[in-house]
Parts: sequence; C-alpha cells; structure tokens
Amino acid sequence: MNTGKDHIIKSYDAELGRLTGEIVRMGELAVTQLEAAIDVLERRDERAAQHVVANDEAIDQLEQAISHDVVRLLALRAPMAGDLRNVFAALRIASDIERIGDYAANVAKRSIPLSMAPPVAPTGGLRHLAEMAATATREVLAAYRDGNVESAYRVWKNDVVLDEAYTGYFRELLTYMMEDPRNITPCTHLLFMAKNIERIGDHATNIAENTWFQVTGETLDSQRSKRDFTASPQLDRLGPPVDND
Amino acid sequence: MNTGKDHIIKSYDAELGRLTGEIVRMGELAVTQLEAAIDVLERRDERAAQHVVANDEAIDQLEQAISHDVVRLLALRAPMAGDLRNVFAALRIASDIERIGDYAANVAKRSIPLSMAPPVAPTGGLRHLAEMAATATREVLAAYRDGNVESAYRVWKNDVVLDEAYTGYFRELLTYMMEDPRNITPCTHLLFMAKNIERIGDHATNIAENTWFQVTGETLDSQRSKRDFTASPQLDRLGPPVDND
Repeated sequence: MNTGKDHIIKSYDAELGRLTGEIVRMGELAVTQLEAAIDVLERRDERAAQHVVANDEAIDQLEQAISHDVVRLLALRAPMAGDLRNVFAALRIASDIERIGDYAANVAKRSIPLSMAPPVAPTGGLRHLAEMAATATREVLAAYRDGNVESAYRVWKNDVVLDEAYTGYFRELLTYMMEDPRNITPCTHLLFMAKNIERIGDHATNIAENTWFQVTGETLDSQRSKRDFTASPQLDRLGPPVDND
Repeated sequence: MNTGKDHIIKSYDAELGRLTGEIVRMGELAVTQLEAAIDVLERRDERAAQHVVANDEAIDQLEQAISHDVVRLLALRAPMAGDLRNVFAALRIASDIERIGDYAANVAKRSIPLSMAPPVAPTGGLRHLAEMAATATREVLAAYRDGNVESAYRVWKNDVVLDEAYTGYFRELLTYMMEDPRNITPCTHLLFMAKNIERIGDHATNIAENTWFQVTGETLDSQRSKRDFTASPQLDRLGPPVDND
C-alpha cells in the first residue's frame, strides 16, 4: 500500500530525475553552442555568430530555473545524506554548464572582429581544441546521467591532453605574431578563444568531480584542474600558465 | 514568552546573519589577494606570487563550506519567500567571490613568468585596473552586508568605467607588441592579467545584482555586465570584445 511518506519520497526521486534530465539537456545545448561557434568562425559569418551569442541567454535562463527549482525543492522537502549530495551536485553541475555556454558564446563573439579582418593564422588548431572539449563535455554529461564513475574519471584524467594541445596552439599563435605585427590583433583574439576552450575542458573535469562525489560521496583530487605548467622553467618563458577561473 | 517557533525563527535569522558575515569576510580575503597579486608583480617576487596562488585554496574551501552550510540550512528548515531570497543570494554571492579569488590568483600566477623575463611594458595600467576592481568589490561587499541598494546600484553602474580602462590598457599593450616582437610573450601575459581584473569587475556587478534582488525581490537588468564593445565597428578591429564567463 502506498503511504503518504512513500508518495513524497517517490515524487522527490521523480523531481530529482527530472532535474538531472534538464541539466543534461542544458549541457547538450552548451556543446551545440561550442560547435556552432567554431563553424561560424570558419565560415566568417558575422550574422550567425551574433545568433550564437544571443542563444546563450537560453542557457543562462535554464540555469536560473534549475537553481530556483533546487532551492525550492530543498525548502519544501528535507532531503538527507545521499539526496542532499545529489542536489548539491546538480547545483554545481548546472553552474559549470552555464559557464561552458558562456565560453562558447565568447568564442562566437570574438569571431566577429576576426570575420571583418583579412584571414590570418589557421584556425584548424582551434577546431581541434573545440572538438576535444566538446567530446569531453558530451562524455561527462553521459557519465553524470548514468552515474558512471569510470567514465567520469576518464574525462577527468584526460583533460591534460586538451591542456597540452592548448599550450601547443598558444605557441603556434605566438610565432605568427612575431612574424608579422599585423597578425598581433587577430591572434590575440585567437589566444583568448583558445583560452575559453581550454576552460571548457576544466569545467568538464569539474562535472566529472561532481559526478564522482554524487556517486561515491568522496572527492576526486580537487587540485586536478589546477595543474600549473609554470612548474617547467622553459614553459615559464614561452607558454601560458593554466588559469583557473 | 518564547515559543518553540520563535526560537527556530530567531536561530534561523542568526544563522543567516552568520552566513552573511562569513561571506563578507571571504570577500575581503579575495580583495586582499588581488592587492597582493599586484604587489608581487611590481616587486617581481616569485616566492610571494606562489604564496598568493596557494592562498586561493583557503577561499575555495570557505566557499565550499558556505555552500554546504546553505544546503544544510535549506534541508533542515523550510525558509519561505524573503528568507529563500537571502539564501539564494548568499549562494550566488559566495560563488562570485570564489571566482574573484580565482582571478586574483591567476594574476599572481602570471606574474611568475613575467618576473623571470626582462621588465617590459609598464604595469601601471594594470595597477590602476586592479585598484578600480578592488574598490568596486569592497563597496559592493559593504552594500551586501548593509542591504544598501543605492550603493549596490552605484557599483553596478560604474563597471563601465573599469571596462573602458581595460580597453585602453589592452590597446596600449598591443602597441608594445607591435613595436618589438620580444614584447609579445610578456604582453600576452599582461593581456590575460588585465582580462582577469576586468572579470573581477563583472563579478562585483553580479554581487550588486544579487544584493539588489535580495533586498527588493526584483532583478537589475541582467544584461548589464554583458555590454559588448564590438557594437562599435572601430573597436571591432582594434579592441577586445568584452567576454562573459
């Protein structure tokens, strides 16, 4: 027989399930935005870029709605232990996705001045970075949805490859800037775009950490995404330190 | 006579008050970090820079503790309307401060490769930006603590001045890069540092928005911090679009 308490518990689970589904959809939207941003850059399509920038508002609103849902859920019920962990992870993951959306919009935004100037440095390196970041984000969203800690751990561990690709592209851009001062302004845009994509990878690792925490109740080393390449004296002079924001 | 309900309500208020105090202290720590980051840059002191970077961990831990407190508070009590608003604002503001701390640590981190290279472009512009951002953050923390919406609005409105100073400094750095290719690598660090400080200003405006929301229950135009200087065709070619992350 269904007691009142069972009913509340069931609908609480149902609400949590609905929340997870919403967060995963929001994440898919953010990944689509990143892919669109790279497309508009390569097509030098200013109008389409403006469209990507405007679309970010939808992600921001989803995150606000999810946060409000969570706070209301917490206020109306009294979840404990494991449930609290789910709710806490949901809040954090929604916030990470919101920022992934922001970074994708930044890439689209900076493609606008680039589309107006003569073509410069190849943008193939940027596409490569974006594809790695998109793959990591999709994989970690699936890991979150399925509670798959192995998959989450793989994403988390793999971010170092994106960081290395970022450092390589950063150096490549520096050489274009040194070759011809006319490359400096457009290449600074590409530098910032690459940085935005590298940061998307960091947020994918945050989602991996929160997935891990939700499932196991333990934390992955929170220092993981703060690796600092400045530890290498050679890179100190030439490469970018890995920001953390 | 003190009823049980009064007691719960009072201690709820007390807990909220304590939470606000903790958040303000966390904010002061973040501002101090920003000021320290500029000092170590100017003193070219690598050890002190490492110290600033390491200190960021304390801010991150404070934010985690505050978020956990908030979630526990929500789970154990059932705050409504105005109270929920306070709690919601507290969560958001703690997260903004955590990111201000991250940006300050990024500035310190990038000062390390700079301290190893010969001195380049003047860093006076960066100090100016940092002072504006520190002042805005201090002012908005006081506005949050006191529920002072006029002061919050002033900070929110004033961010445009920091954005303009950032654009000016960005252009100044481009000229150094164009003058001498040896300036390119160090100046890219300064570009990223300036960007980090400009983002601190954006987070100060977020705190202003949340203070406004907490006190009035209404939202300040959420588009405020997303002003996009690319609207000007001239700046399209020369200046940085304002990122949003």
